[in-house]
Amino acid sequence: FMHIQDPASQRLTWNKPPKSVLVIKKIRDASLLQPFKELCMFLTEGKNMIVYVEKKVLEDPAISGDENFAAVTKKFCTFREDLDDISNRVDFIICLGGDGTLLYASSLFQESVPPVMAFHLGSLGFLTPFKFDMYQSQVNQIIEGNTAIVLRSRLKVRVLKENWEKKARVDEKGIILTNGDIESSRKAMQYQVLNEVVVDRGPSSYLSNVDLFLDGHLITTVQGDGVIVSTPTGSTAYAVAAGASMIHPNVPAIMITPICPHSLSFRPIVVPAGVELKIMLSRDARNTAWVSFDGRKRQEICHGDSITITTSCFPVPSICFRDPVNDWFESLAECLHWNVRKKQNYLSSEDEEF
Amino acid sequence: FMHIQDPASQRLTWNKPPKSVLVIKKIRDASLLQPFKELCMFLTEGKNMIVYVEKKVLEDPAISGDENFAAVTKKFCTFREDLDDISNRVDFIICLGGDGTLLYASSLFQESVPPVMAFHLGSLGFLTPFKFDMYQSQVNQIIEGNTAIVLRSRLKVRVLKENWEKKARVDEKGIILTNGDIESSRKAMQYQVLNEVVVDRGPSSYLSNVDLFLDGHLITTVQGDGVIVSTPTGSTAYAVAAGASMIHPNVPAIMITPICPHSLSFRPIVVPAGVELKIMLSRDARNTAWVSFDGRKRQEICHGDSITITTSCFPVPSICFRDPVNDWFESLAECLHWNVRKKQNYLSSEDEEF
Amino acid sequence: FMHIQDPASQRLTWNKPPKSVLVIKKIRDASLLQPFKELCMFLTEGKNMIVYVEKKVLEDPAISGDENFAAVTKKFCTFREDLDDISNRVDFIICLGGDGTLLYASSLFQESVPPVMAFHLGSLGFLTPFKFDMYQSQVNQIIEGNTAIVLRSRLKVRVLKENWEKKARVDEKGIILTNGDIESSRKAMQYQVLNEVVVDRGPSSYLSNVDLFLDGHLITTVQGDGVIVSTPTGSTAYAVAAGASMIHPNVPAIMITPICPHSLSFRPIVVPAGVELKIMLSRDARNTAWVSFDGRKRQEICHGDSITITTSCFPVPSICFRDPVNDWFESLAECLHWNVRKKQNYLSSEDEEF
Amino acid sequence: FMHIQDPASQRLTWNKPPKSVLVIKKIRDASLLQPFKELCMFLTEGKNMIVYVEKKVLEDPAISGDENFAAVTKKFCTFREDLDDISNRVDFIICLGGDGTLLYASSLFQESVPPVMAFHLGSLGFLTPFKFDMYQSQVNQIIEGNTAIVLRSRLKVRVLKENWEKKARVDEKGIILTNGDIESSRKAMQYQVLNEVVVDRGPSSYLSNVDLFLDGHLITTVQGDGVIVSTPTGSTAYAVAAGASMIHPNVPAIMITPICPHSLSFRPIVVPAGVELKIMLSRDARNTAWVSFDGRKRQEICHGDSITITTSCFPVPSICFRDPVNDWFESLAECLHWNVRKKQNYLSSEDEEF
Repeated sequence: FMHIQDPASQRLTWNKPPKSVLVIKKIRDASLLQPFKELCMFLTEGKNMIVYVEKKVLEDPAISGDENFAAVTKKFCTFREDLDDISNRVDFIICLGGDGTLLYASSLFQESVPPVMAFHLGSLGFLTPFKFDMYQSQVNQIIEGNTAIVLRSRLKVRVLKENWEKKARVDEKGIILTNGDIESSRKAMQYQVLNEVVVDRGPSSYLSNVDLFLDGHLITTVQGDGVIVSTPTGSTAYAVAAGASMIHPNVPAIMITPICPHSLSFRPIVVPAGVELKIMLSRDARNTAWVSFDGRKRQEICHGDSITITTSCFPVPSICFRDPVNDWFESLAECLHWNVRKKQNYLSSEDEEF
Repeated sequence: FMHIQDPASQRLTWNKPPKSVLVIKKIRDASLLQPFKELCMFLTEGKNMIVYVEKKVLEDPAISGDENFAAVTKKFCTFREDLDDISNRVDFIICLGGDGTLLYASSLFQESVPPVMAFHLGSLGFLTPFKFDMYQSQVNQIIEGNTAIVLRSRLKVRVLKENWEKKARVDEKGIILTNGDIESSRKAMQYQVLNEVVVDRGPSSYLSNVDLFLDGHLITTVQGDGVIVSTPTGSTAYAVAAGASMIHPNVPAIMITPICPHSLSFRPIVVPAGVELKIMLSRDARNTAWVSFDGRKRQEICHGDSITITTSCFPVPSICFRDPVNDWFESLAECLHWNVRKKQNYLSSEDEEF
Repeated sequence: FMHIQDPASQRLTWNKPPKSVLVIKKIRDASLLQPFKELCMFLTEGKNMIVYVEKKVLEDPAISGDENFAAVTKKFCTFREDLDDISNRVDFIICLGGDGTLLYASSLFQESVPPVMAFHLGSLGFLTPFKFDMYQSQVNQIIEGNTAIVLRSRLKVRVLKENWEKKARVDEKGIILTNGDIESSRKAMQYQVLNEVVVDRGPSSYLSNVDLFLDGHLITTVQGDGVIVSTPTGSTAYAVAAGASMIHPNVPAIMITPICPHSLSFRPIVVPAGVELKIMLSRDARNTAWVSFDGRKRQEICHGDSITITTSCFPVPSICFRDPVNDWFESLAECLHWNVRKKQNYLSSEDEEF
Repeated sequence: FMHIQDPASQRLTWNKPPKSVLVIKKIRDASLLQPFKELCMFLTEGKNMIVYVEKKVLEDPAISGDENFAAVTKKFCTFREDLDDISNRVDFIICLGGDGTLLYASSLFQESVPPVMAFHLGSLGFLTPFKFDMYQSQVNQIIEGNTAIVLRSRLKVRVLKENWEKKARVDEKGIILTNGDIESSRKAMQYQVLNEVVVDRGPSSYLSNVDLFLDGHLITTVQGDGVIVSTPTGSTAYAVAAGASMIHPNVPAIMITPICPHSLSFRPIVVPAGVELKIMLSRDARNTAWVSFDGRKRQEICHGDSITITTSCFPVPSICFRDPVNDWFESLAECLHWNVRKKQNYLSSEDEEF
């Protein structure tokens, strides 16, 4: 007898009223300036909230030079990426811009992520369900709580580079300068990924050739332009372009999609969220590969390096405009024209054929 | 903070030693006779178990006429499909044959299903991981317990036919004989499906035209040869032939795959196991549609009829040969030649081009 | 040194002015009545042409009962499908309706086909490029000649049924009534096909299993829902729904597309127009197959029967609205929403990521 | 009434017996040394032919240091790529290695190409149908003439770079050194391509965004990883990995295949050989694109640059092992495992279901 979870049941509730909000704005987009100012004004003065804004956002002359806005900016808490830790200081996040703002918000929180409310200013994105024109009532509703959320799973990706330091010294000077302890020459990095990890052939014109392990077993070798390991959220991003089926973000799964595979029979597969994946260069790979994380932090992968991928314990709670199901089908239609049809009959019966 | 289930953790344990076993044998396949007899002998005489066998299996002259086997058959408990209820009398099931034997076993149990051990006698199937040559030690191991199982989710499908009786009377005689209470003319049927529900255009040469609802909302209209609603188990059956990605049986999801859709952008989708789907003829459909359940019980669907699909509370516990992950990748390779490759380089770099 | 044909070079020219025109109208579509009457009036009275109309078109009460139109209908030449031969009496054809009217026009001419001008009354079809609102000037232009045409290749399909008569007698009564000369029991039929020949499993729930021969060599066995052999014109009809690439009608080729093939690696193929294909049931096929021609004349194929397919010597000269290239891309966009996009960036670089 | 070409009819005939042969050997592959030496010995001493070999092939110590082979090498005519013109001096070509040797042979002949006989030493390639073990009798047969050939069409690609010189000066020094006549700053390059031209996003993580013109008309914009314009020969190389149907080399056509397109409905298309294609960066492309020719000569494409593609007048006459049809299906099976199947029945009928 099996228990089946109702995907529509997750809701946002507050133990105590939210006090602080991080506002993320796409930079270098003039059309966002006015909405950004309005929103911040509303949050600080209308709702008495502490607003966090990244320092570089305020360095934009269109903001720093606006005297009318100066009173508001003074009240902001500012921070710098990679330097200041805001992980426990923000009650929720508001994004202004495209899907990229949410990917960026995700990258700021390597552990627990506050709920995110994402506005699209132009066309609907997969991750930005809110329209800005009703922003006040919608922000009020979130502050009151009891809105639907979707917990978007992330991937925890660990990159282990062998002989990292040694190699770095060699690369710079051309000769081996250090001959130190091998143990100390390893370097591990960790990333939280909302859409996908991509391993590809980079600038090489040879096929990539990587081995894919699942729970320690070699399951296949990927020969082609590369491979995408994505969350359900990421299934509608790069993976769908590479031929994958589309997975609702509430399905606890990881998707593996080859990019232009050499083999005709290499169909994408979907595995349970609980597995551990590992990717390494194949023994007989003639070239290195490249890896990137939600399209960022692109780096080379050499023989001996490994990329380990598991479902993260820290999903992104994404606030729904309506609910997880309706929002998703809305975005499929808007962003991918999914099954947009013109009714027509290509087959005709004997007696009504024309 | 999210809890992620480990798909490898499900194991078969017995509260008390199993006493009864249902043996299912593909009929009309002479190569199965000897293994069937051996197995039954071993179970009844070697293991002292009560063996259930379907009556029609024993009516085969090659079995009923075998005097050496008569002593064993006398000890069998027999039953007839659709007439005798064996739902609470069987501790586990052994299948001999192809994937069809397991689909059949599934259809015998509309509620809770005993664990199933499935032998392939010829080539490996998706649902039949055991080779027969070591059957004794393997059956012993299952009786001892602590073998890995995969809980294969099923779909509970409810077909509601409007004006069923009225229509039936009209169909036979050509004129309306009854004009009875509409309430009483409805007929509901229910099926447990292990692979898929298929709705297609049947013998019509017009496209099928059906509406698909999810939790009560119309999400799309399917125009094409039809639509497949499948379990993850079914994703590697008909759905994969229609272009779907392949889903591991441990992923709690339902897959929706169009068959030759008229629209280029109608990619398959994967939704959470907890949703309710409903399929009805579109208002402007010119023809009826046909529905079948794991390839059986094919029937016509008319205007007003509906097919409601949810994940069943009664999965099929399928005993693994090794474990859920290895068994699955083994069957992908064996049954679908998944990513069987010949190493080759279609792209060549500047300096090593030939 | 190779000569490459310019696909835009084919043009319609008249040796002597056209005198007779066949008008084909989709039946049972009230919206076509007024345009049909207007057009016929214009052709008979305005252009002094002899108009051919099928008898059953005039039997529609909305036409036969229209006294104002009676004077025009009297001047019509009428004919009945399959009974009257109009093959050498018509200078060109005008179709009113959808793509089905052109498929029907094609079926009326088993050898040489007059040029066809096809109007779509509602939405654009692949075969119906003309809008009706400017019909007079456009018909004038065709009569003057020098308009672009595309020669749409057809397939000549020959079905050879073994033991045809014998089997028919057996099927009806259940016992063999005739035991005649096997030689005389063969039956051959021939069809000209504009879109495609489809061989499928029909009402059977078993996979179809057919052998495909090319120039006498067995090239593969098709196991799945069936196989589509299509012209380039047909590549955008059923074949595209089954996953085929789309081929411009000026490419001299035949396309072979499996329908839901059991094998992951069974990609569609395109072979030169000059080959001979043959399809037969595989030796070990458990069920018969069914064949249809442009969606019509559906019939069963049994063991021993064969379907032979070559490119016909009699293409359909289809008059272009603009030219073969523009018309085709227009119809791809309109009918299939080919590459209708919303500009978006799913990948983001390091420094402009949000 | 249409004339249809028989693809099997092209044959190699000699006006006068062939006297000179170019032997192309994959470099850095020790397993080829012995066959290479044997073949050259046979050609020079057994057949009295003039053998052309590229200089760098002979610089391999394993060849230059072999004293037994020195007598033979002395008789060779040698040449250097890009420096010496051998275009009218070679009667036919023999390739030893993989498909890359034939791509390389193609690149040596920008106009008329001599017939090519290609041996695969290991596994069969698409372009290398001959096994080496019977090389003597097979070479004899070619010298006698009357063997089947397939004329593999090539693409003539013209790259026009605007402001080429100006930009180059800037790139080197970082400041603008020249401000010369714009007219003189254009640079045009031309390539003959046997497989495909690829335009992709290169190292950029933004989507490529290029406009595709056909005979001067903008037909679509490609947003994705890139686009492949291939010959039928190239349809089974990179294009098939990107999802294309496979086209027999005798079909006079050009294939256009998007690489991971952002749009779900961007299916590959096949256009007639006679068209002219042009690719340029879209006006609103944020990044440059990169182009390569049969995987070589990779270069950047900037705003204003254009790539013009037509079917070349100089195909590659490729000598068949059996004939164009059998060789192709053989290579589909060997190289792509096309429709390699395991017979299985995923659907089952009512009465034989298990």
